[in-house]
Amino acid sequence: MKNKKLVYVGNNRPIRDAALKVTGQLQYTADMKFPHMLYAKMLFSPVAHAKIKKIDTSKAEALPGVKAVVTYKNSPRIPYNSSMRFYEHKIPETEYLFDDTVRFVGDRVAAVAAESLEIAEKAIRLIEVEYEELPAVFDPEEALKEGAPEIHPGGNKVAEIKTEAGNVEEALAQADYVFEDRITVPAIHHCAIETHVAIATYDSRGKLTVYSPNQNTFAFRIIISKVLEMPMSKVRVVRPAIGGAFGGKLEAVIEPVVALLAKMTGRPVKMELNRRESIVSTRTRHAGVFYIKSGVNKDGTLVAQDFRVILNTGAYATSALNVSGAMSHKVFKVYKTKHMRFTATPVYTNTPIAGAMRGYGSPQAFAAQQIHLNRVAKALNMDFVDFQLKNLVEPDGVDPRFNSPHGNPRPLDCVTKGAEAFNWASRPKTEEQGRFKRGIGMAIGSHGNGCFGAHRDVTAMVLKMNEDGTATLFTGTHDMGNGTVTAETQVIGEILGIDPENIECIEADTEATPWNLGDYASRGVFVSCNAAKKVAESVRREILKEAAQLLEVPVEELDLVGGYAVSTKDPEKKATLCDVIVHGQRVNQREIIGAETFASPAGVTSYGAHFAEVEVDTETGKVKVLDYVAVHDVGKAINPMYVEGQIEGAVQMGIGYALTEGLELDEKGKVTNNSFKKYHMLKASEMPRMQVLLVEEGEEPGPFGAKSIGECSTVPSAPAVVNAVSNALGIDFKDLPLKPERILKAIQVQK
Amino acid sequence: MKNKKLVYVGNNRPIRDAALKVTGQLQYTADMKFPHMLYAKMLFSPVAHAKIKKIDTSKAEALPGVKAVVTYKNSPRIPYNSSMRFYEHKIPETEYLFDDTVRFVGDRVAAVAAESLEIAEKAIRLIEVEYEELPAVFDPEEALKEGAPEIHPGGNKVAEIKTEAGNVEEALAQADYVFEDRITVPAIHHCAIETHVAIATYDSRGKLTVYSPNQNTFAFRIIISKVLEMPMSKVRVVRPAIGGAFGGKLEAVIEPVVALLAKMTGRPVKMELNRRESIVSTRTRHAGVFYIKSGVNKDGTLVAQDFRVILNTGAYATSALNVSGAMSHKVFKVYKTKHMRFTATPVYTNTPIAGAMRGYGSPQAFAAQQIHLNRVAKALNMDFVDFQLKNLVEPDGVDPRFNSPHGNPRPLDCVTKGAEAFNWASRPKTEEQGRFKRGIGMAIGSHGNGCFGAHRDVTAMVLKMNEDGTATLFTGTHDMGNGTVTAETQVIGEILGIDPENIECIEADTEATPWNLGDYASRGVFVSCNAAKKVAESVRREILKEAAQLLEVPVEELDLVGGYAVSTKDPEKKATLCDVIVHGQRVNQREIIGAETFASPAGVTSYGAHFAEVEVDTETGKVKVLDYVAVHDVGKAINPMYVEGQIEGAVQMGIGYALTEGLELDEKGKVTNNSFKKYHMLKASEMPRMQVLLVEEGEEPGPFGAKSIGECSTVPSAPAVVNAVSNALGIDFKDLPLKPERILKAIQVQK
Repeated sequence: MKNKKLVYVGNNRPIRDAALKVTGQLQYTADMKFPHMLYAKMLFSPVAHAKIKKIDTSKAEALPGVKAVVTYKNSPRIPYNSSMRFYEHKIPETEYLFDDTVRFVGDRVAAVAAESLEIAEKAIRLIEVEYEELPAVFDPEEALKEGAPEIHPGGNKVAEIKTEAGNVEEALAQADYVFEDRITVPAIHHCAIETHVAIATYDSRGKLTVYSPNQNTFAFRIIISKVLEMPMSKVRVVRPAIGGAFGGKLEAVIEPVVALLAKMTGRPVKMELNRRESIVSTRTRHAGVFYIKSGVNKDGTLVAQDFRVILNTGAYATSALNVSGAMSHKVFKVYKTKHMRFTATPVYTNTPIAGAMRGYGSPQAFAAQQIHLNRVAKALNMDFVDFQLKNLVEPDGVDPRFNSPHGNPRPLDCVTKGAEAFNWASRPKTEEQGRFKRGIGMAIGSHGNGCFGAHRDVTAMVLKMNEDGTATLFTGTHDMGNGTVTAETQVIGEILGIDPENIECIEADTEATPWNLGDYASRGVFVSCNAAKKVAESVRREILKEAAQLLEVPVEELDLVGGYAVSTKDPEKKATLCDVIVHGQRVNQREIIGAETFASPAGVTSYGAHFAEVEVDTETGKVKVLDYVAVHDVGKAINPMYVEGQIEGAVQMGIGYALTEGLELDEKGKVTNNSFKKYHMLKASEMPRMQVLLVEEGEEPGPFGAKSIGECSTVPSAPAVVNAVSNALGIDFKDLPLKPERILKAIQVQK
Repeated sequence: MKNKKLVYVGNNRPIRDAALKVTGQLQYTADMKFPHMLYAKMLFSPVAHAKIKKIDTSKAEALPGVKAVVTYKNSPRIPYNSSMRFYEHKIPETEYLFDDTVRFVGDRVAAVAAESLEIAEKAIRLIEVEYEELPAVFDPEEALKEGAPEIHPGGNKVAEIKTEAGNVEEALAQADYVFEDRITVPAIHHCAIETHVAIATYDSRGKLTVYSPNQNTFAFRIIISKVLEMPMSKVRVVRPAIGGAFGGKLEAVIEPVVALLAKMTGRPVKMELNRRESIVSTRTRHAGVFYIKSGVNKDGTLVAQDFRVILNTGAYATSALNVSGAMSHKVFKVYKTKHMRFTATPVYTNTPIAGAMRGYGSPQAFAAQQIHLNRVAKALNMDFVDFQLKNLVEPDGVDPRFNSPHGNPRPLDCVTKGAEAFNWASRPKTEEQGRFKRGIGMAIGSHGNGCFGAHRDVTAMVLKMNEDGTATLFTGTHDMGNGTVTAETQVIGEILGIDPENIECIEADTEATPWNLGDYASRGVFVSCNAAKKVAESVRREILKEAAQLLEVPVEELDLVGGYAVSTKDPEKKATLCDVIVHGQRVNQREIIGAETFASPAGVTSYGAHFAEVEVDTETGKVKVLDYVAVHDVGKAINPMYVEGQIEGAVQMGIGYALTEGLELDEKGKVTNNSFKKYHMLKASEMPRMQVLLVEEGEEPGPFGAKSIGECSTVPSAPAVVNAVSNALGIDFKDLPLKPERILKAIQVQK
């Protein structure tokens, strides 16, 4: 198939459920209703750190219509980690369904299931809790200090992860210059339009079924079967449609509690967080403090770089180790520098829990690095694009840690193509029009594809042929609106020579679909489409065997094209796929079903370069992004429309990260911007003109050369915008987000 | 595994969904409700044969709330056969969704979908139809006569199927005696407690999903995708719980119409037949006229037998050929006689459509044969049990048509064991107590296991291991309350050494489960449990490979017992199945999923002998069955409780067939006993004392030696009862059912 013209891969086609979405027919969990369903509500802690001295649920229990009240007193006390991914995943288990200690404003205290939402809300208010407040700490650097309040036994340092290549100390000592910066990035929230919601049913057979928009049905099954002590066969986790996730639905946040309530009551139980609860109590992107040191020579060569990072994991560990580890790897993938070190220290504080979020460490690390290097280039009097071109890895580049090839990294192409499209060279670097100052900035970024290297990274799939030549795919993939599953059908269609439209998909259901590691880590295209390719190739072999028998032609001579098995030597010799499948049924009495596990064989990297022009209103401190170019190395776009859509959405998030978002806590640790009114995500009207360009030079281990785009797309965005603002004002901003107050303050200082 | 003690096979365990049934949690189609669902109602023909001269639906369409009215004028005109089973099933296609001719009272004229059932009912009454009545014929022998009204082009004889062994003419000529009888059996109805009901949804993606209690999701998919011209991938047929079927839900009766209405309206549509509609318009067991001729010698040896059968298929062909063919084979399986002939002629009449019903030809053929032979034995002055013992096939017997071995047929054991349990020899043959006369009778019967010989008979299954050592089975099997799927889990549990309770099942869903020929023809245990065995063996091999690697023990040395992989040489060397599966995931990065197709390699036969004592009230003509013994050769009972349950239910149906059921038509062809008040099924209080005994001598190709029981169980019942009545009164009854009027009339004639 090497040099065959691709028929379905590389095409734009609407996402499988597009028609359902636009007609309002797509079933979200919030739309679902079961007979005799109860409504659940959670009681969240109003204090940042306390021991529960007394909890009295008797009034709540006595309220007519209340069917269950659960607290630490009557729930299983089995420690777990809500970000557990597979059976032997060794990560700190600091969470319980409910605990006698609360560790942040928004921590779980109790839950109620009742005949109506109104009753549940009333019951929650009837629960009497006496807290014995404990000293709290909100800043991760403070939390590391001697004498800081201890949030979990053993101290607040979750771990220290050191990753190193070459000899950083020596290289720094020999560099012409050494630059140092302290850069901070805030916690932000995913703000998926659909909040966390789950329904659990528990029937008289002892079978539990949990419906929730989530990114990891199989991981949730592990956690729920563990904390409720049930066999996995009796725990089914199903993902209905999903209204945005971005990592926020990767961890089992409310599902174990809803499952417990269903098991206690034997009734279906639904819990839907409102926006406030969602922002406060679910997960955030880790805030961090970055100490970066770079050694550079006069000619702009980056010779060494040292990162020391303190990450705020919030009140519980969840994915602290994973995010720290993932973040550490990324910086070794972009520059030719042989001497690099990354030390990450995740730290407990009494703030909302940090978890997975689009980029999983990369947005923070690249924001810090690219803001720092923009300043370095300026100090060297070097154009930042020239600095990039001098230092970025080339296609034959290697990872300095292992001297192993990167694959086919194309950040240089991204920068070159983007600079040209943006007219970087000819555009004025700064402009001033009265109170408005304009500037341009750029940044690069990268992100991995899957978990290869960190741990096993597998996706199994089953593909079943129907007798009319159409097919059903069983995929554990959770399409989160990004089109991964449709892309899988394009890959399968390509291999079987059938229209992807004729491949139906059963998605993300622990009972109906084969195992999948979950949908995160940009596994979608790279791993899942590879799994789709593998199972399709297995089915193709069986189809060709039948066709060879039917057509009396050697297998090697046959191809599958446009719904036919056809001889490549004599095009007259052909049969419809329907005839071939029915031949298998009739003559060989067999069904064609493929079942394959794909294990990722390589860690490849996606790259991007973003260019932004901003305008700062020096009177209000407001920043407007005017123009934007995003270029990404994706190997091959299986569906360019989806890739572009991903990038556009990612830029919206990136600009928000740079300028308008960021959780704000009061002195008691309470999130104050806990509504869409107060938490400013970029609106469509605030978005810049945008041009998206792709570099498609292929990546050998990718399916048809493809790499993933979901996360990498957001990585260069925030630093590109911050650098543009810094350039516009001639101020080096080092703390995100650049909200008007911060900008005005900086202008004040500048004056 | 040959001589291993069985752990799960052979055990009584409750059916998988027993708890759901008794708590009312099991979801039947009638319980299901979709948002925005419409309710559909059918207009049935009030005349037996007519051309629709004019049909005016305008008033119905104008009724507020009516969303669709469909007739022959606005529906696809694609011929089909509602009993089609697989893609190239060659059977007469005489049906349309709607036609301009009606052929029986109860034929489809139109259907309506509306916002409520009340509106739909009202709309149906507003449809104005002008019929041009045509001459009708209700008796199949009349229908064959020259000049009879032609119901379909080409005449009323659907086919003539002749099956023969030896030289019947010659053998009859040489026999000591030749006996002849004309015996008739009526049409009866399945009377499943759940009537026909279906819900179809059609979404904006063009995806149709049909939910209905049915016995053949894959066949329904073929029919629906054919008549609505849709690819199979876009047609999903799902079977929720099923409240009794007995063959009545094997043919696509209302589903294609409901699917059409959903497609027309884009809304979910539900249609539920009421009891009257169900009895009149769905399917019945073929009525038949049997001309039987037997050649016997003085010593009681049956030397030849000739059957000429006219079967009433009703207004449409549906399964006429299949039932005729199936019926023809059965009689070659029971006696040692080398000379046999069976000529079956299915005939159209203007009566309700005959279709599949439990036994699929066997109840009719054996009723006729055993009633006839009871008379023959009497004429020879021979005890009927002795006659059976002289003539029945022995385990080494062969099918006289092909001289091929029957397998391990045990009708002799059934008769011997039954006669002993019933005290046949010592019990008085007749007794008289005033107006009450008692008598005893017996009969034998057989039924095949699957469709081997007739056409391909396959079931594919997928079995997926969970990482805790539990599993999910994907089975196309439609468990109809008889426990087939639970039996499959017992077979799998036996092979994998895991508790069947830990195997969850996804059943009968064209999208989620692999292909299955359908649940009929007593395929359940023989074919489906064999398929379960095959897929379990495939998974076992993979588990053993992993275990061998983990335990460092050769594969040959390992066994799977009680959730462990264990060395047969050193019991200390063992690992939980969980450890083994996780080893596969961790070390070899693979999921264990088996996908196998099982194709039936043999046509084996189940046998039974029933013994009944009856009491006839000579004043009222009422018959009461007092005592009953049923013995069945099942090879091996995978779950004896289910087998006994099947037999008990089958006897209830068999007694009804003998005594109380039978559709009654008035002179216009209208069914008069179209309610449970008028159609007399045996109530629990009318059932006899009953003893069920099993012969378990194994059948080589059966799973663990098992044969199916679902249909064979009902076959000997009716003739055993009729023979008992004949013996009690000294009258040879030759027409079923023996309703009081018939008995009183015969007593009258006798006097």
